Amino acid sequence: MSSQRATAFVPGHVTAFFSAHPADDPAAAGSRGAGVTLTDGVTVRVSAADGAVDGATGDDTAADDDTNGDAVAVDDATADAGSRTIDGESGSIGAVEDVLDDLNATGADVAVETDLPIGAGFGVSGAAALGAALAANAAFDRGRSENDLVRTAHAAEVGRGTGLGDVVAQARGGVPVRLEPGAPGVGELDGVPASARVEYVTFGELSTEAVLGGDTTALSAAGEAALDRLRDDPRLPTLLDAARGFAREADLLVPEVAEAVEAVDAAGGEAAMAMLGRTVFALGTGLSDAGYDPRACRVDAAGARLVGGPDRE
Amino acid sequence: MSSQRATAFVPGHVTAFFSAHPADDPAAAGSRGAGVTLTDGVTVRVSAADGAVDGATGDDTAADDDTNGDAVAVDDATADAGSRTIDGESGSIGAVEDVLDDLNATGADVAVETDLPIGAGFGVSGAAALGAALAANAAFDRGRSENDLVRTAHAAEVGRGTGLGDVVAQARGGVPVRLEPGAPGVGELDGVPASARVEYVTFGELSTEAVLGGDTTALSAAGEAALDRLRDDPRLPTLLDAARGFAREADLLVPEVAEAVEAVDAAGGEAAMAMLGRTVFALGTGLSDAGYDPRACRVDAAGARLVGGPDRE
Repeated sequence: MSSQRATAFVPGHVTAFFSAHPADDPAAAGSRGAGVTLTDGVTVRVSAADGAVDGATGDDTAADDDTNGDAVAVDDATADAGSRTIDGESGSIGAVEDVLDDLNATGADVAVETDLPIGAGFGVSGAAALGAALAANAAFDRGRSENDLVRTAHAAEVGRGTGLGDVVAQARGGVPVRLEPGAPGVGELDGVPASARVEYVTFGELSTEAVLGGDTTALSAAGEAALDRLRDDPRLPTLLDAARGFAREADLLVPEVAEAVEAVDAAGGEAAMAMLGRTVFALGTGLSDAGYDPRACRVDAAGARLVGGPDRE
Repeated sequence: MSSQRATAFVPGHVTAFFSAHPADDPAAAGSRGAGVTLTDGVTVRVSAADGAVDGATGDDTAADDDTNGDAVAVDDATADAGSRTIDGESGSIGAVEDVLDDLNATGADVAVETDLPIGAGFGVSGAAALGAALAANAAFDRGRSENDLVRTAHAAEVGRGTGLGDVVAQARGGVPVRLEPGAPGVGELDGVPASARVEYVTFGELSTEAVLGGDTTALSAAGEAALDRLRDDPRLPTLLDAARGFAREADLLVPEVAEAVEAVDAAGGEAAMAMLGRTVFALGTGLSDAGYDPRACRVDAAGARLVGGPDRE
């Protein structure tokens, strides 16, 4: 059981619209709304170095190695913190650290890789947290269920204030509709049955923490109205139209995004702003047809999944 | 909007163990238990011939064409029943017909294709029903949500007595654990996070209807015990071990399957019986190692999905 590795892939997620539902219990907190998961996503590789794999029951072992005899201060995090990289450069993500701590896996080496822009509304932090949960559980053979791992990643993301609904959407895949907020066992999901090409262009970052930390009353009212529309007509064009209405009513549109959405509309396509980022996404060839040079991917059918590891024989 | 086609893929599902939970409402009826979804599955192609696509609002049109003026007897099913094939041969599946009826899509041509053995414990009828729901919804642009389509297919399968838990498991993908019985909105799911190669050998059919139509008290008690074990330790080897205990206690083992399970065990592998079929499935190369000549596939990460159609640009 020593020196195990596992790799998870988690799709990116662009939120079309949402309402915020804070709660004291991070598993019960979350958002209602809808979005699109993408085949462009985040890959998380977790390597349990020799010794670290025994972390679940290894506090005693760590204490044995601790010549100070100060067992309280000695856990994997302090004794054997592993390396952390994001796209090959040294760097860590708060929600990932909280997940590793919960799984007693801080001793692992964790590499996060993504082609998605960070901080631009693709749910990269949530994807990294969920990928870390799946991969660390596999690498360290922690024996958690999928709901348990999604709950852990969701709570970490909510606790850090970096997202409210990405994790449960990314776990599901497809075009997730968040009917009720919260982690598995609390929240409730549906989906728009669709397979489509998705294009996107990013103009820069927008702080999720700043928006979620402010007054979200008007935003949430607009999000609830958009959700009602989509539930009445669960089709992709309706999702995009509801998203455009939400961006206007919640006063979140930024000029470059508004211009791109209008250009796609003028070219006969469907586009909307990704919440929360200076990002526009479109169905089919909407952005290409409007003269932009977008990245292209597809709706991700599978959701978060292990793609390599001890079980992948 | 005339002459649309859509194609859905739905994974096969081998049930490891289950308890039966009948109910008057087919959406509330179902089973608790666990199983494994497979990359070997069922493809359903739905073609909406010209005219049939207007079926949702087309009862009036059909009546207009009816020279007898007997509007009650005229619906798509009688006026324009489309073709039905299973692996290229003429043939229909009860649950599929009920789904098409619910979606007012009986006028469509429906082709079901699968490499899986039928009636051998792979959930082919449930997969066909769910695939028909996804593909007909897309081809006829019916605008149903995913939960709605899963509920429709689940109710059709339960109503026909051909399965209790395959549809919700196949919609989810992975290694589904059915915590509470029933369709989306009623039932509750979890999963064992695992990616694995799966081998299987089939020795023939076993009637689901005959088993589910008999006294299921002892079977359900064994299924509940197996589920408790898996919830305590959600790992693949535990799922297989719980499945072996269930097959013994529920007295469902057939000699060829028992022999194969023992042979895999003797060779150091993990195997169990697929409920309900004369089928054995094994992790990794378990059956190959034991000298069998199995088919091989993998755990299906995605669950049911559209793979072609109007939205797949």
